[in-house]
Amino acid sequence: MFFKFSVVLIVLMTVFIVGCGYEPYQEETSPDKSIVIQTNLDSEGQFYYKVLYKGKVVIDSSTVGFEFKNIPPMKNGFEILRAKKQSDSESYELPWGEQRYVESDYNQLKIDLREKENLGRKFSVIFRIFNDGIGFRYDFPKQKNIDSVVITDELTQFRLTGDHKVWWTPGDWDIYEHLNNTSKISEIDALSKRSHSSLAQTYIPFNAVNTPVTMKTEDGIYLSFHEANLTDYADMTLLVDTENLVLTSGLAGNDLGYKVEQKTPFVTPWRTIQIAERAGDLIESNLILNLNEPNQLADISWIKPMKYVGIWWEMHLGKSSWDMASGRHGATTENAKRYIDFAAKHGFDGVLVEGWNTGWENWIGDDREGIFDFVTPYADYDLEEVVSYANEKGVQIIMHHETSAAVSTYEQQLDTAFALCERLGIHAVKTGYVGQIIPDGYYHHGQYMVRHYRKVLLKAAEHKVMVNAHEPIKDTGIRRTFPNMISREGLRGNEFNAWSSDGGNPPEHLTIIPFTRMLSGPIDFTPGIFDIKFDKYKPNNQVNTTLAHQLALYVVIYSPIQMAADLPENYEGHPAFQFIKDVGINWDETKVLEGEIGEFVTIARKERETGNWFIGSVTDENDRKITIPLSFLGKDKTYRAMIYKDAEDAHWDKNPTAYVIENKEVQNTDELKIYLAPGGGVAISLFAN
Amino acid sequence: MFFKFSVVLIVLMTVFIVGCGYEPYQEETSPDKSIVIQTNLDSEGQFYYKVLYKGKVVIDSSTVGFEFKNIPPMKNGFEILRAKKQSDSESYELPWGEQRYVESDYNQLKIDLREKENLGRKFSVIFRIFNDGIGFRYDFPKQKNIDSVVITDELTQFRLTGDHKVWWTPGDWDIYEHLNNTSKISEIDALSKRSHSSLAQTYIPFNAVNTPVTMKTEDGIYLSFHEANLTDYADMTLLVDTENLVLTSGLAGNDLGYKVEQKTPFVTPWRTIQIAERAGDLIESNLILNLNEPNQLADISWIKPMKYVGIWWEMHLGKSSWDMASGRHGATTENAKRYIDFAAKHGFDGVLVEGWNTGWENWIGDDREGIFDFVTPYADYDLEEVVSYANEKGVQIIMHHETSAAVSTYEQQLDTAFALCERLGIHAVKTGYVGQIIPDGYYHHGQYMVRHYRKVLLKAAEHKVMVNAHEPIKDTGIRRTFPNMISREGLRGNEFNAWSSDGGNPPEHLTIIPFTRMLSGPIDFTPGIFDIKFDKYKPNNQVNTTLAHQLALYVVIYSPIQMAADLPENYEGHPAFQFIKDVGINWDETKVLEGEIGEFVTIARKERETGNWFIGSVTDENDRKITIPLSFLGKDKTYRAMIYKDAEDAHWDKNPTAYVIENKEVQNTDELKIYLAPGGGVAISLFAN
Repeated sequence: MFFKFSVVLIVLMTVFIVGCGYEPYQEETSPDKSIVIQTNLDSEGQFYYKVLYKGKVVIDSSTVGFEFKNIPPMKNGFEILRAKKQSDSESYELPWGEQRYVESDYNQLKIDLREKENLGRKFSVIFRIFNDGIGFRYDFPKQKNIDSVVITDELTQFRLTGDHKVWWTPGDWDIYEHLNNTSKISEIDALSKRSHSSLAQTYIPFNAVNTPVTMKTEDGIYLSFHEANLTDYADMTLLVDTENLVLTSGLAGNDLGYKVEQKTPFVTPWRTIQIAERAGDLIESNLILNLNEPNQLADISWIKPMKYVGIWWEMHLGKSSWDMASGRHGATTENAKRYIDFAAKHGFDGVLVEGWNTGWENWIGDDREGIFDFVTPYADYDLEEVVSYANEKGVQIIMHHETSAAVSTYEQQLDTAFALCERLGIHAVKTGYVGQIIPDGYYHHGQYMVRHYRKVLLKAAEHKVMVNAHEPIKDTGIRRTFPNMISREGLRGNEFNAWSSDGGNPPEHLTIIPFTRMLSGPIDFTPGIFDIKFDKYKPNNQVNTTLAHQLALYVVIYSPIQMAADLPENYEGHPAFQFIKDVGINWDETKVLEGEIGEFVTIARKERETGNWFIGSVTDENDRKITIPLSFLGKDKTYRAMIYKDAEDAHWDKNPTAYVIENKEVQNTDELKIYLAPGGGVAISLFAN
Repeated sequence: MFFKFSVVLIVLMTVFIVGCGYEPYQEETSPDKSIVIQTNLDSEGQFYYKVLYKGKVVIDSSTVGFEFKNIPPMKNGFEILRAKKQSDSESYELPWGEQRYVESDYNQLKIDLREKENLGRKFSVIFRIFNDGIGFRYDFPKQKNIDSVVITDELTQFRLTGDHKVWWTPGDWDIYEHLNNTSKISEIDALSKRSHSSLAQTYIPFNAVNTPVTMKTEDGIYLSFHEANLTDYADMTLLVDTENLVLTSGLAGNDLGYKVEQKTPFVTPWRTIQIAERAGDLIESNLILNLNEPNQLADISWIKPMKYVGIWWEMHLGKSSWDMASGRHGATTENAKRYIDFAAKHGFDGVLVEGWNTGWENWIGDDREGIFDFVTPYADYDLEEVVSYANEKGVQIIMHHETSAAVSTYEQQLDTAFALCERLGIHAVKTGYVGQIIPDGYYHHGQYMVRHYRKVLLKAAEHKVMVNAHEPIKDTGIRRTFPNMISREGLRGNEFNAWSSDGGNPPEHLTIIPFTRMLSGPIDFTPGIFDIKFDKYKPNNQVNTTLAHQLALYVVIYSPIQMAADLPENYEGHPAFQFIKDVGINWDETKVLEGEIGEFVTIARKERETGNWFIGSVTDENDRKITIPLSFLGKDKTYRAMIYKDAEDAHWDKNPTAYVIENKEVQNTDELKIYLAPGGGVAISLFAN
């Protein structure tokens, strides 16, 4: 079943022609009229925009502009050449996603600007106004006075209307693996997060925040700022003016002194603002996907959501190691077969094997070029045999490419690396970029790396391989265009709990992530740790949630690939493991039932094909009672509910593994009253049969 | 670890020699003095015995004797030739059982009797008095005036001291598959149970009860009557004199007019009386085992407790059939492989395949000789391939021999049948004896069949095969001597719930069985039905318990082989299935924590090797709250408790599958307070680490 329809209305509005230009004031609304964009030129010919939500200004007059290397900036002295309005309404199907069909319905306002003086250079600002937010981008047409440009700064402003409460991570050019901070805008202090003992690379040059950054106004309106379709540009952080409460685009750069090099014609990524009255509406919003291009891959039959296990957590615990010289090599043929057996037994689709290829003895250090070749297994790992054993058992091996951020080494070997995958019938790779980027002077989030990540993605697609990138560039919705971009990290994952010297992820972590990082796209968080305290391996570390909370993450955190990250032996004998086996991995619908950022969130998702629903809810360090009305279920149908919840005396630290599983029949007229323990959660399967 | 010690004290007591005989009054006590046996001769030279418990008579003067074909009875005119006392105390290890080491500690009184007149025939009555009950048997020595005898009646009396409350099944010569009745002794009315529409054979000739039969006196003393070591004799029912409250041995006979044929020397089985102040002590008693001989099999390495699944319940539901002509043959190669896959996936040791051999089209009827040959598979069942597939997966096929009670056919083919098992490496067989015994005139419980069942058991042992007999002779502790007698039916199993026209087994069923049938030995009850109502197949039948009650049976009902009886598809997705996967199958210790016959029972068993404890509790149609003190757990140890209990609104009929699983840590100072729903139960795993 597939349908797609598209209605394009082009309305050329020609109002108040003044001279050779247009009336500088332009306005457009969202289809439901709730959002209004007003644009104008100020007395200096600076272009600015304002955003109103339900009649109230949420972004006050904010200017835009660019600075270049060796040529004058483009920021004022503009005239409006033309204003063009356009509308589009369509519904498209996702091969995998939080929902099957996505509605896209927007009004577009395109303003063509030209410098009155200087070189008469032109660019356009294109606004797309949806009911759930806006996106705008800059379009530089081919023109005689700009051929190649080197952008040193983009000057897009977001002028806030108050000192909002904000959930932020520091604007880092190298890594997104920071905890969220909660403060007022005026209190943002990213530079204090500069050094982190548990990060192999981090570079925070300014008081800026990463996107998505989410905030709540005094009026209770939620705003989240991000970007969409970051294709050949640099990651946008937001520089924070704590006095004037203005955010300004701060592109990730390099040590060569610029941010972006381009040739006209080119467009920038979309700058996005999601606007919602309910925190949960941010999660249900499809703004980011809607600002990306449709699927460009012809055959996508090999792209399949999957649940997987792998040789991974045991290295983080120190039970084994990536490198063979350690004498406790994790990726042996025998151990891989053990995981394959476990996967086959419990119905997992894939097994990730990290540390399978030679080089791990030297992977961290200065001289990382040529360390890894992505095709040579360690002597104790028979790649062909493991793959063939997996095939026999109906399990797929997930390839692992740790580049140690030696990017040119990897690029040189991409063909060979992905050809091996194709020959072995491997359709998934996890990539890694730990360490400072080689060549020197580049950062993970700069244009150089944006181009690299895209190159890898396209090369993978050629060889029918899905990419799960760790230490990635942030998600900006590219998965719609290249659905082999299956998932990525780009946040503090579960592994921080295994070794971080700062106490790991606090209980509130996953009550913020869904409203920040997750607005950008799928997360390979690797949940499902059952041995919460793992005293056998790391007595001084632990996961800071209850076991039921870990289960809930399979629903709360969206990803079309989900790992059951704990050691196989820690699942044996746990009836709660059934939830991980049952939970859907590809969805028809997603509903955020309730939630408050940094406190708790309750999400329901309907599985494709089966019609089963799954619910996950997690709370921060505070316990709470939640009520879940089941009115979203099919009418006059009985569902078998399997409820995995915290025991009454559960507690993320004092008693994290005490859980209760309840089996009962429910209908859409029922409500479930559930107690969430401190740091706790609940996971619910609702079987339609 | 194995130890065995034995202390035999032989004390020849020679008191008051009168003439050539001994003082007729003889008395002996149990080692702890709680039980006293008093014997004497009455004025007619009848031998009688009395049993006192803690100073109170529990069996009043009861005579013994025999009637024979063609020769005078032996019942009075006796003198006592000799009285011999002896004591024995030992501890022996069971290869499998409710506990690992069994204490056996008794005082023995042997009275040698001789007819003063008639033929001067002799026999002895041997009493063994344990702290938990007594056994006595008759020993007929080789003697000139009795060579061959044909016993027409054994006249052992049990004179009760009150109109006790009794849990009884009718004394049937053909089948034990009756519901328990609860009444006063004076109300026993076995003949009213004569016809049962759901039984393929039943023969109830007298107002008698089967053993074990259990009763409770007004003083709150529990008595249970049974027999031990039934080797070459007839099953003993107990004829009920409802007026005088006397039970008399009523041996199962045949249509040839006798009960037992024997040659001197011979001994009868032990007649046993268990005595307890707590109902649960009956279950903890080892009286029956202690009255059997030690293991006689040299190599028992092939005897292993196992959990199994099988092609069985689907026939009872009518989803498939035993016979191929039906067009819905269950035992196909493909279906067997499906079960093997399921078994391998979930760690089950065995797969039973019923209906694999030709003959099922004609298995019920008059002409049953030669129908089955036990070696010829149906065309759609490749026996060799199935066995080899199972071997590859580490699963054992359980052979099935349905004899359709054509006993001589089976006996003629025993060698061939068991040689096939041995060749295929099959170490377990389930036998069946549905229908009236052929040859005509014999009954399942008569001496002819007792001999047959033993013959099969020994033949099986020769070929290293364990026997799980259905429609068996009752258990009398033979498993101690031949531990390949692994389990048996001999009660109304779970299958009655699938098709019985009387509504199936009521909720109270399994609250009585542990105190009656289970006192004799292991039960292949085939618990674990999760699809309680199975409306898809049999909308008018159902299991009359909750799902949690079904789980509890894996602990409450003892068997070294336990089936997960439901269809594989009914377990998928049920976290409660974990309990069946986890629960022990061989025990170090058993403790009956609490219980009242016909109301509820709570049993804890400690698994061998792991030291894990498992608890099961089931209730009748009434709900109740129970408290389980965990003081039996190891001190200063933390156990992970996984509690599978009824949901608050569970009910055997209205809401049978609503359950709750709770995971928490416990210590031996804790108590668990558990709610059992009507017809409900609880199953608890306590993992030692």
